Amino acid sequence: MTTPHADSTWNALIQRWQELSDLGDVGSVLGWDQSTFLPPAAAAGRARQMALLAGIRHARATDAAYGTLLDAAQARSDWSPVQARTLAVARREFEEATRFPAAFVQAFSQHTGKSYSAWVEARPANDFARMVPYLERTLELSLQAASYFPEFASPMDYFIDQSDEGMTADVVDQVFAELRAALVPIVDAVAQAPAPRTDFLFRTYPVATQLELGQEIARAYGYDSSRGRQDLTAHPFMTRLGDRDVRITTRVKENDLTETLYSTLHETGHALYEQGVGAELLGTPLGGGVSSGVHESQSRLWENLVGRSRAFWAAYFPRFRDAFPEQLADVTEDEMYRAMNAAQRSVIRTDADELTYNLHVITRYELERDLLAGRLAAGDLADAWHAAYETNVGLRAPSDVDGALQDVHWYGGGIGGAFQAYTLGNVMSAQFYAAAQRALATLEADTARGEFAALHGWLREQVYAPGGTFKPAELVERVTGEAMTVGPYVAYLRSKYGALYGLN
Amino acid sequence: MTTPHADSTWNALIQRWQELSDLGDVGSVLGWDQSTFLPPAAAAGRARQMALLAGIRHARATDAAYGTLLDAAQARSDWSPVQARTLAVARREFEEATRFPAAFVQAFSQHTGKSYSAWVEARPANDFARMVPYLERTLELSLQAASYFPEFASPMDYFIDQSDEGMTADVVDQVFAELRAALVPIVDAVAQAPAPRTDFLFRTYPVATQLELGQEIARAYGYDSSRGRQDLTAHPFMTRLGDRDVRITTRVKENDLTETLYSTLHETGHALYEQGVGAELLGTPLGGGVSSGVHESQSRLWENLVGRSRAFWAAYFPRFRDAFPEQLADVTEDEMYRAMNAAQRSVIRTDADELTYNLHVITRYELERDLLAGRLAAGDLADAWHAAYETNVGLRAPSDVDGALQDVHWYGGGIGGAFQAYTLGNVMSAQFYAAAQRALATLEADTARGEFAALHGWLREQVYAPGGTFKPAELVERVTGEAMTVGPYVAYLRSKYGALYGLN
Repeated sequence: MTTPHADSTWNALIQRWQELSDLGDVGSVLGWDQSTFLPPAAAAGRARQMALLAGIRHARATDAAYGTLLDAAQARSDWSPVQARTLAVARREFEEATRFPAAFVQAFSQHTGKSYSAWVEARPANDFARMVPYLERTLELSLQAASYFPEFASPMDYFIDQSDEGMTADVVDQVFAELRAALVPIVDAVAQAPAPRTDFLFRTYPVATQLELGQEIARAYGYDSSRGRQDLTAHPFMTRLGDRDVRITTRVKENDLTETLYSTLHETGHALYEQGVGAELLGTPLGGGVSSGVHESQSRLWENLVGRSRAFWAAYFPRFRDAFPEQLADVTEDEMYRAMNAAQRSVIRTDADELTYNLHVITRYELERDLLAGRLAAGDLADAWHAAYETNVGLRAPSDVDGALQDVHWYGGGIGGAFQAYTLGNVMSAQFYAAAQRALATLEADTARGEFAALHGWLREQVYAPGGTFKPAELVERVTGEAMTVGPYVAYLRSKYGALYGLN
Repeated sequence: MTTPHADSTWNALIQRWQELSDLGDVGSVLGWDQSTFLPPAAAAGRARQMALLAGIRHARATDAAYGTLLDAAQARSDWSPVQARTLAVARREFEEATRFPAAFVQAFSQHTGKSYSAWVEARPANDFARMVPYLERTLELSLQAASYFPEFASPMDYFIDQSDEGMTADVVDQVFAELRAALVPIVDAVAQAPAPRTDFLFRTYPVATQLELGQEIARAYGYDSSRGRQDLTAHPFMTRLGDRDVRITTRVKENDLTETLYSTLHETGHALYEQGVGAELLGTPLGGGVSSGVHESQSRLWENLVGRSRAFWAAYFPRFRDAFPEQLADVTEDEMYRAMNAAQRSVIRTDADELTYNLHVITRYELERDLLAGRLAAGDLADAWHAAYETNVGLRAPSDVDGALQDVHWYGGGIGGAFQAYTLGNVMSAQFYAAAQRALATLEADTARGEFAALHGWLREQVYAPGGTFKPAELVERVTGEAMTVGPYVAYLRSKYGALYGLN
């Protein structure tokens, strides 16, 4: 990294960025407490506190004097590359914060609140029709949001760029088309093969021991507990409460050995990314993970490429058998590995396994794309959903409850850009992992001994330390030597599931 | 309560007050997390967040437009009594926030930081001499702080008014003189009497059970867990994180049955006060406990007047014996009551029992008063401390570690007003309790059954619901029918310790 010029403009910007970062982190403290420890009666007051703080941050993020400062800085050409990139990211956030008229933001937020409340009732009632007018209005508002950014070729391009800067619908379309073409035959073949035994996963596993094991592996991965902690929430997440305070949450089920383990490893992957950002970038616009897709690549890499690998279970099966001697008395290491990778078609995205998960995402992406392009009417979404599931997943949900009403995203937020980053993350995770394999000769052998320092160190240097310095596609190219491509991911899945299900 | 005028000035003020209240609460969330769950490496970042938020709140609390609004409101005479009082309290806080020049606040804060760091080293080294220059400067700055409020007759009057509005050094001097005169002979007599057995208090008591018992009693007292929670901290405290979010903390020692119990009951007393403030006052300058002294009266009332009473142990000894059957197998209810009220001279304030505690406070108050009046030089404080302890407490600490270096207050803050509220609280607690006895015929009988609803309801109506509506002295008069006086407190101690130690 080039040492930044320490002139007055730069120093003034650094100070503003630090404040914006700190205010964002304070908001995260409120959000973390809301999900972990907030007393039930305090919910309304907490919502008011969070809105107040968001308003204060928004006022500072859109301050005219800040805009003038950015203008002055960007008019100059004597910045280092990192400084120039920092200014570009700051500008991007400034535009995002300033272009929406306040009345639009308020209208969108009010509509979203009403839509969410309606969905909470409509979903259990399987009442898609009730949601149609809400969806129509959400679509309208989503298109209006994109219209404030006319520099993008399409609304979908704007939404994709929001979550992964520089990526476009054309790129995603192609990646997803290739991926679907490769996945569908594998899923078909797996469906024909005998299923592994999974019965033992659902025996009784005391929750305290499950939590201990998850934390033990998180620390082995490289999670720094002096800069974070783990708590319990209804929905697991990773959150940054400060530049040295990156927390994760999990949930635990006494009768499910997979829930705590893999939600912990997933959130640990996100946390390793945030904990690994270079100290010199903290508090600046580059001081976090660069994009949703790259973030997901790290959660998936640690959860799946490492945590569901044969080598991982060579390291940890003995530990699990020590922890649960009676529950795992009749289970072999190989059975454990196979059970943790059991794959089958299903209609619920969040329950889907590593192999079939992407088909759920691709389906949603395509429906979003068609809605935004005017090729699909909101009123036809439920039928289109079932048809797309038959094509992509090979299954049809028995009702809209598990169909178009399944996910909260479109009902409690906007339409566009909500899903594709999950699968882009999977694709990139395999590229990064393949590059790590080339760089680290003993990668699998290390994993088989429960040693992750080399992998963690390599990822920290290659992916985490740069923070937001490189755009996602640029980062992939720098680290892997090639553009984003499904090749390594498809090869990984073919090889893994081929061996698991005897498909070769 | 009179319904407030809903005119535009009032509405603008209400909105500002709600924001100031919310910003204060957000600061409390940061402080609570700092003491409960903050990862060690996050301390510096959290301090920066807290300073940023305090700065934002200060800017809003001292905003010129807010001052203009207050001026305009106070120029009118058509407010209800509650509105007029609300404006007066807001004005008081506005003056407190605006009169100190920024440079003075910064100088004081920087000095305090250095002084605290020096004390952390000087105390274990028993090096009072090292602290003298710091104390001299602290005294100078404390006097300067008071000088911004020339309307008070003396610096001590200013500091006392800060913690208990309307009270003066003359009043406190008299209360403390009467109290000392009454206490010293009781302490002397107790010292001559045989000590009760306390051995069983220090057996092994599993911490989880101790915590459960504490929470059970807190709920029985009336603590509303839907609007709060309890966590563990190094130093117990109560904090308000939102208008329906009043949390307490405790600490637990496996070999001490008193620590968790009485710190929980103490903080529960503070929390009942905050939870009991009338809903219509929340978010306004009257929306919390009125003063430090009155707050302490409630923590002490529930900790001591109730929680250390004979009736309390009639209710809870069976419960404790069920929880700890082996540890308490050789203990009677009466022995438990006596052990929980064992009194003896000691040199450490925070370890002192109910009877001797006030002598520690009076000693500090008088030393502060003499320092501020120029009658005592900072360099002579250590000797003056020992002399005062011999007079008031009847003991001399073996060194300055447990002498003038004992408490953080003068080394990490200012000199003046740090201590007297503890004893004023004790004095008022007995007045309030005596009034409750008059109002509630079955008070002791209720306590003996573990029933606290009537007492809690009476205190809520009389003391908690009004929040900051009445000044401390006014509240005492309204609730008890007499001015603040040591009579009921001395009578209570004489009767209780007379019986305990057979002094009559």
